[in-house]
Amino acid sequence: MTLSPTERSTVRRNAKRSRTDRSDLHAILDSGLVCHLGMTVDGAPRVLPTGYGRSGDTLYLHGSSGARNLREGGEGVAICVAVTHLDGIVYARSLMHHSINYRSAVIHGSARAVSSPEEKWEGLRVISEQLAPGSWEHSRQPDRKELAATAVIALDLSEASVKVRAGGPGDDAADIAANDAWAGVLPLHRSWAAPIPSDDLPAGFAVPEHIARREHPGT
Amino acid sequence: MTLSPTERSTVRRNAKRSRTDRSDLHAILDSGLVCHLGMTVDGAPRVLPTGYGRSGDTLYLHGSSGARNLREGGEGVAICVAVTHLDGIVYARSLMHHSINYRSAVIHGSARAVSSPEEKWEGLRVISEQLAPGSWEHSRQPDRKELAATAVIALDLSEASVKVRAGGPGDDAADIAANDAWAGVLPLHRSWAAPIPSDDLPAGFAVPEHIARREHPGT
Repeated sequence: MTLSPTERSTVRRNAKRSRTDRSDLHAILDSGLVCHLGMTVDGAPRVLPTGYGRSGDTLYLHGSSGARNLREGGEGVAICVAVTHLDGIVYARSLMHHSINYRSAVIHGSARAVSSPEEKWEGLRVISEQLAPGSWEHSRQPDRKELAATAVIALDLSEASVKVRAGGPGDDAADIAANDAWAGVLPLHRSWAAPIPSDDLPAGFAVPEHIARREHPGT
Repeated sequence: MTLSPTERSTVRRNAKRSRTDRSDLHAILDSGLVCHLGMTVDGAPRVLPTGYGRSGDTLYLHGSSGARNLREGGEGVAICVAVTHLDGIVYARSLMHHSINYRSAVIHGSARAVSSPEEKWEGLRVISEQLAPGSWEHSRQPDRKELAATAVIALDLSEASVKVRAGGPGDDAADIAANDAWAGVLPLHRSWAAPIPSDDLPAGFAVPEHIARREHPGT
């Protein structure tokens, strides 16, 4: 299924980097750790980093994101969510052709406050699994009081821009001929270091497999 | 020098994580690679990942960021810039106490289109040095035509929120006593992989020291 960009989600700058396959959007979201949530507060833009999770074509955000602005706004508050992976720095012969290899998803839509307990449960589950896969089963799940105290915001994934840049620099012919500077890509990787047990964990408590063998995150 | 938060830059949620030292803001900005720029376009919030650089207490953004919205807006368009470092995932005994270790800077202010060639030059230099330290000297600098074609946006660093979370989980006493789940931190690292020369670079062109020995990026 392809994305159907609207006016605002149509990529204009470097349009050749645009992707319209919904699977590209899903892949970028699924390999991220946090998103940047944009909203308007008192007439001015605000951006906050926050956790998220995806269930089908709905993105869920923890309701503490943006504090009361989103919760009080209820239905129809316009928001924008960006998830960005940096894959490397592109060094060119000229400064102007320096660039970044990246995968970027920007989603536009209206925040929906999740009201049904079933959907709130699913929202919290996918937010949790995105940040800490396996914890939903391993750790203590929210009790009724915790669930009631937690707001969950939903965002439909129907309106999104996806951009990807990969590969080497695109230098001007004169700069390539001059051969005065190095050109290429310095790839950027992310990895987990060794788990650090909490001070109050009894000695000998083994690190569970889902943490010890957690897959390396996207860049 | 300390930050003097305004109403909107005052940290309310988890205020104990707030930092008001200007050096903390500078450190977070200086170790980042891209920021997320928020602005209002046609009445709706928009968030875009983009490069940036800092010179003293001014942040510079490449004018292609947000395309013509910012350039045409000229003086006084409200923007918000977030720079976020993820340092690790905090696993708790309960799902509700799972968290993220992070360093976050959120800057509020008005975009200023840079008009003087001298300030534009300085802006481009710090944007370039942030993403590719050393390239400003090693690569071909912008010529007069390239400089004229590039817009640079300035943002004053006077109004900013800085939040930092570090350390282990803060579980409830009952969950600690139950001792049913692992708790601790899984640290997240970023590193450079081996540089990949451009296909059109002559064989034997040595990777310059500033790329081969580039310091590992912040998380």
